[in-house]
Amino acid sequence: MAGGQHDEQLFAELRAVATATLAAQLRRHELDAAVLSGLTPLAPGQKLVGRARTLRYLPFREDLAAAKGMGVQRSLIESLAPGDVLVIEARGVTDAGTIGDISALRARERGAAGIVTDGALRDAAVIASFGLPVYFSGTNPAQPSRRHVPFESDVAVACAGVLVEPGDVLVGDDDGVVLLPAAAAAAIAADALAQEEEERFVAARVAEGESLLGLFPMGPEWRARYEASKERPPAR
Amino acid sequence: MAGGQHDEQLFAELRAVATATLAAQLRRHELDAAVLSGLTPLAPGQKLVGRARTLRYLPFREDLAAAKGMGVQRSLIESLAPGDVLVIEARGVTDAGTIGDISALRARERGAAGIVTDGALRDAAVIASFGLPVYFSGTNPAQPSRRHVPFESDVAVACAGVLVEPGDVLVGDDDGVVLLPAAAAAAIAADALAQEEEERFVAARVAEGESLLGLFPMGPEWRARYEASKERPPAR
Amino acid sequence: MAGGQHDEQLFAELRAVATATLAAQLRRHELDAAVLSGLTPLAPGQKLVGRARTLRYLPFREDLAAAKGMGVQRSLIESLAPGDVLVIEARGVTDAGTIGDISALRARERGAAGIVTDGALRDAAVIASFGLPVYFSGTNPAQPSRRHVPFESDVAVACAGVLVEPGDVLVGDDDGVVLLPAAAAAAIAADALAQEEEERFVAARVAEGESLLGLFPMGPEWRARYEASKERPPAR
Amino acid sequence: MAGGQHDEQLFAELRAVATATLAAQLRRHELDAAVLSGLTPLAPGQKLVGRARTLRYLPFREDLAAAKGMGVQRSLIESLAPGDVLVIEARGVTDAGTIGDISALRARERGAAGIVTDGALRDAAVIASFGLPVYFSGTNPAQPSRRHVPFESDVAVACAGVLVEPGDVLVGDDDGVVLLPAAAAAAIAADALAQEEEERFVAARVAEGESLLGLFPMGPEWRARYEASKERPPAR
Amino acid sequence: MAGGQHDEQLFAELRAVATATLAAQLRRHELDAAVLSGLTPLAPGQKLVGRARTLRYLPFREDLAAAKGMGVQRSLIESLAPGDVLVIEARGVTDAGTIGDISALRARERGAAGIVTDGALRDAAVIASFGLPVYFSGTNPAQPSRRHVPFESDVAVACAGVLVEPGDVLVGDDDGVVLLPAAAAAAIAADALAQEEEERFVAARVAEGESLLGLFPMGPEWRARYEASKERPPAR
Amino acid sequence: MAGGQHDEQLFAELRAVATATLAAQLRRHELDAAVLSGLTPLAPGQKLVGRARTLRYLPFREDLAAAKGMGVQRSLIESLAPGDVLVIEARGVTDAGTIGDISALRARERGAAGIVTDGALRDAAVIASFGLPVYFSGTNPAQPSRRHVPFESDVAVACAGVLVEPGDVLVGDDDGVVLLPAAAAAAIAADALAQEEEERFVAARVAEGESLLGLFPMGPEWRARYEASKERPPAR
Repeated sequence: MAGGQHDEQLFAELRAVATATLAAQLRRHELDAAVLSGLTPLAPGQKLVGRARTLRYLPFREDLAAAKGMGVQRSLIESLAPGDVLVIEARGVTDAGTIGDISALRARERGAAGIVTDGALRDAAVIASFGLPVYFSGTNPAQPSRRHVPFESDVAVACAGVLVEPGDVLVGDDDGVVLLPAAAAAAIAADALAQEEEERFVAARVAEGESLLGLFPMGPEWRARYEASKERPPAR
Repeated sequence: MAGGQHDEQLFAELRAVATATLAAQLRRHELDAAVLSGLTPLAPGQKLVGRARTLRYLPFREDLAAAKGMGVQRSLIESLAPGDVLVIEARGVTDAGTIGDISALRARERGAAGIVTDGALRDAAVIASFGLPVYFSGTNPAQPSRRHVPFESDVAVACAGVLVEPGDVLVGDDDGVVLLPAAAAAAIAADALAQEEEERFVAARVAEGESLLGLFPMGPEWRARYEASKERPPAR
Repeated sequence: MAGGQHDEQLFAELRAVATATLAAQLRRHELDAAVLSGLTPLAPGQKLVGRARTLRYLPFREDLAAAKGMGVQRSLIESLAPGDVLVIEARGVTDAGTIGDISALRARERGAAGIVTDGALRDAAVIASFGLPVYFSGTNPAQPSRRHVPFESDVAVACAGVLVEPGDVLVGDDDGVVLLPAAAAAAIAADALAQEEEERFVAARVAEGESLLGLFPMGPEWRARYEASKERPPAR
Repeated sequence: MAGGQHDEQLFAELRAVATATLAAQLRRHELDAAVLSGLTPLAPGQKLVGRARTLRYLPFREDLAAAKGMGVQRSLIESLAPGDVLVIEARGVTDAGTIGDISALRARERGAAGIVTDGALRDAAVIASFGLPVYFSGTNPAQPSRRHVPFESDVAVACAGVLVEPGDVLVGDDDGVVLLPAAAAAAIAADALAQEEEERFVAARVAEGESLLGLFPMGPEWRARYEASKERPPAR
Repeated sequence: MAGGQHDEQLFAELRAVATATLAAQLRRHELDAAVLSGLTPLAPGQKLVGRARTLRYLPFREDLAAAKGMGVQRSLIESLAPGDVLVIEARGVTDAGTIGDISALRARERGAAGIVTDGALRDAAVIASFGLPVYFSGTNPAQPSRRHVPFESDVAVACAGVLVEPGDVLVGDDDGVVLLPAAAAAAIAADALAQEEEERFVAARVAEGESLLGLFPMGPEWRARYEASKERPPAR
Repeated sequence: MAGGQHDEQLFAELRAVATATLAAQLRRHELDAAVLSGLTPLAPGQKLVGRARTLRYLPFREDLAAAKGMGVQRSLIESLAPGDVLVIEARGVTDAGTIGDISALRARERGAAGIVTDGALRDAAVIASFGLPVYFSGTNPAQPSRRHVPFESDVAVACAGVLVEPGDVLVGDDDGVVLLPAAAAAAIAADALAQEEEERFVAARVAEGESLLGLFPMGPEWRARYEASKERPPAR
């Protein structure tokens, strides 16, 4: 799905850029529908970078309770590899959990890069102690089966309003989570790095008291100064 | 998925019972999670009975637009057989359509028993003229792809809060839609018919001015009279 | 709670005025918080006038299922008198019913003036055939106990955002439902009748092509003409 | 804002096409954000075509009640010309009205083509009797000032999720309302007429039992037959 | 309602278990409808254990403002005993407060175990400084009477979707709040303690790198090892 | 719009009072509709006091993208003066940003007192590091234009349910934000200071174990003691 070494460099670049910058580049690349909405980070300052491994929940139905269930979730977790992000489609339902502390701990032990669920967490405080980046829509002590059950894994899902396919790259920070389609991730990362370099220059000027006009976005005069500055070490 | 002759009798029975009665029987059979919520009938007085053929929408994503789309929906519609109900999972999104007049017309021509979508209809007035039972969450003139695309068919879906598998029986009237799991449909239908017979007796008594106490639900005295009445033609 | 003869005249007056006019008078009487919101009439053109008899639902809880339930609702219905309006607090929950056809039929037989529920109806089509004014928040075939149970009757309730006490007067038409506190009902009705007489005059002038300016609300010139007109038969 | 004669032809064309067709053409013209959402037609089968005249409501504030209010609305209504559509931004608030029967009657007398409000109607049943196309988000008997007041007119507004400028063309039918930017209206109308002609041909074939495959959308074979058919009178 | 000494032991046990574990045991005891939803803890790491004392708010109505109000709330607070939890039904309304700093301070002085409101807090920052466990649906500076008033106390209420009776046991942590019916509390607590002991063993194995398969839930092999381990001190 | 020196004293007073106290005084001054709802503070313990400078967003429309946009926002930010609060009407839309780190930094450099948006923040973590009081409805990495654009500035707006005019005074703390109309701000501030002095006395008594009855609100006995206490230094 992605070569280890290749991913290593891509992920390092993505760890250095904000989701807001990536979202701006997604819009410039005409990929507007790749910003997830309504998710909360479990801890401030966490940074998520990895590739999607997906899990689809469906509503609980009494007559199907025996056939499907947490086994699907456990099998997926046991198959996680380093850098994988567990992405759960829970249809925004937050009055029952989707994942709890033991499963999250096992995911971390398998090297998972993080968890994204548009449903609820159980044992949120314990999970927070694991240091694993987690994004979610709510917390609730109830077992998943009160409302829904894991149904299938490694299929395309809808999470927080975005179609996520296994292998898509996910990046999260305090603003939320964005998706980079596997094929476009490297190009978007490169453009985002360039944008951030520019914005560091801009922010430094603003911190010195400069006006936004002509500076943000950069007009020709500031761009010339910026280009000149690049031959020297960055201002911030 | 279901034998024609067997279905014929089952469907005839189901056409004779209200969804409220079926929902009561579902609860007695411990199948509470089989009542769909939030759907509107396209026309008053319509009656839907058939077996689910499912279609799963996922959010639109610019980079995947070429690979998937309305072709999935068209192929499913072309495969519909008499008695099939097209069931669409649209995640409750109603600011873009899921199905329009030409597709609905073709579904009717193929003998479809009806359409259930938890998304929006386009061309609602034209579809209403087809006489096909349709249940939906809203109307909207926008093309599906403004928000989402048909992604796969004949898989388990979540529609209006209920897990629907291909082959499950769906029954709809002005109150909404209920699902009967394929395996339990015949037993529930039989119990519902018996309940409706009883309730016709009860309603006739209430119309004559009798009190609900001891009558609804029936106590021993009224039950005896009811049993006796069954040897004569029904009161209503 | 209210004298029969007194009510008869009051109710006759209220049947002649629109809820929009009553709501305007409620605002003038500084009773803004008496307009219910989010209710749908079961049939167009119906007119509800009567006094509240209240029923409070609470969420279903498995361990209390035996102790409370539909018996509370049946007893209340059996105690309804002509002119009573059954008012149900269902906390806006619409994925289970609150009242079905047999109970509604019995309410009509007892002389009830109508039903107002901020929950769901079951057997909506059958109830519509009874000719009883009904206002509701949704339809759903599921039995009440899937979500909640009748808990107590003839207590203050919150229905559609408004505190309703037994004996309060309720008036409904296609716009929705308003409450008149028992003590203020007669005064508001009188003012509303006067307002409607004025507005019939205004509407007749508008239909003749007059401008709203100076006419709606009436300035001194139009008021003089209006006062003069009252000595002749009304224009509409 | 638009020449009378020019508008006459444009409006005639638009009266002949469905909003679903216009929405499809808007998407093809890369104008996706012009389909209003969540509006209900006051009467089935009505057709709205006209140019926007806008009214912006803002939340009620006690200390500003004297300065602004219904006078803004009345003045706008008195300035309506034939073909104008009154478009109200009410921020989706439906627990107080925005327009009632007398104002709507005057709008009709001034020749207004219709009313679009993302707030509530008062006197909905009376307004329905006027035969004026009206789209709205709810009904409520309460006076506007319970929640908000007309603040200014003929400015850009947000209605039902869409930016509407005075002079934009609005078209509504049972599916809802779409906006055609003034500059693009004629081109979109022409393309929509062509699409509808094609779809009438397609629908006729579907009604004769043809498969959707190769027909909808038309492949080369069906297109050839369609082009040939255009020399003869249409099939429907 | 509960003996002091008996409660002391029960509460000590409940302080040692997570709400997620209690919710699992509630489900096993077929008490699914006892998990409150949508509440936020005022401070991370707090633990709530106590018995419900209930307060029911109803919507504000101008003509009833003099008769009822904050006096009901003050009297209830003055009657709180050590271990009592103040539970407020506010119908999910969060644009006005339900309780502020002085009332909360008095509740703490009376020995209250905590506060649970499905409405809003006022003076949230000051209340947080009291060290009292509080669960709520929002914060808002507005006085309660802007929207609603305390109406009666020590009655059954609906809070955060759950029927709460005076004397029911409430337990809260970072995941939210669960209710244990008075009659079942001791049995559920005992089962929860046993489950937590097991899960500590499981978590320790997962932390050592064991797979979830056969371990969570425990299969026969791991169960044997677990039973053996119980003769030695726990692994965590 | 407000004299510097005059503002200095007013702002100092307002920094000393809680929003809950101001909201109580607003209600006493019959200004109920001035409490904003649904906003979250970016950092706990922050205090916002300043005068509104307003910005109105409208939905994005492809054909108008060139004409309007971020330039309106930048110009407004460049015109901010010390004590100004940037107030953004974003119609509650939180799946795209309204303001990011560079604009917020420039606002701080211009001396802005804070930012209030009923839309989303981008770069929330960076903005939090600026120490500028910010209130918002959500975070989202997407650029504003994914959903809406700045359209005009220094006009009346609707923010978080309240009409805000340029020059109105805004005060925020952990409970949320209240508005003081420019004309009434000084009187309300004075009354709030008096109320807080009283409440400090009350809180001190409650902390000493006194009952709320007769104390909160103060009856004649406690009032006499309070008046006496004012000749000595305050109890807290």
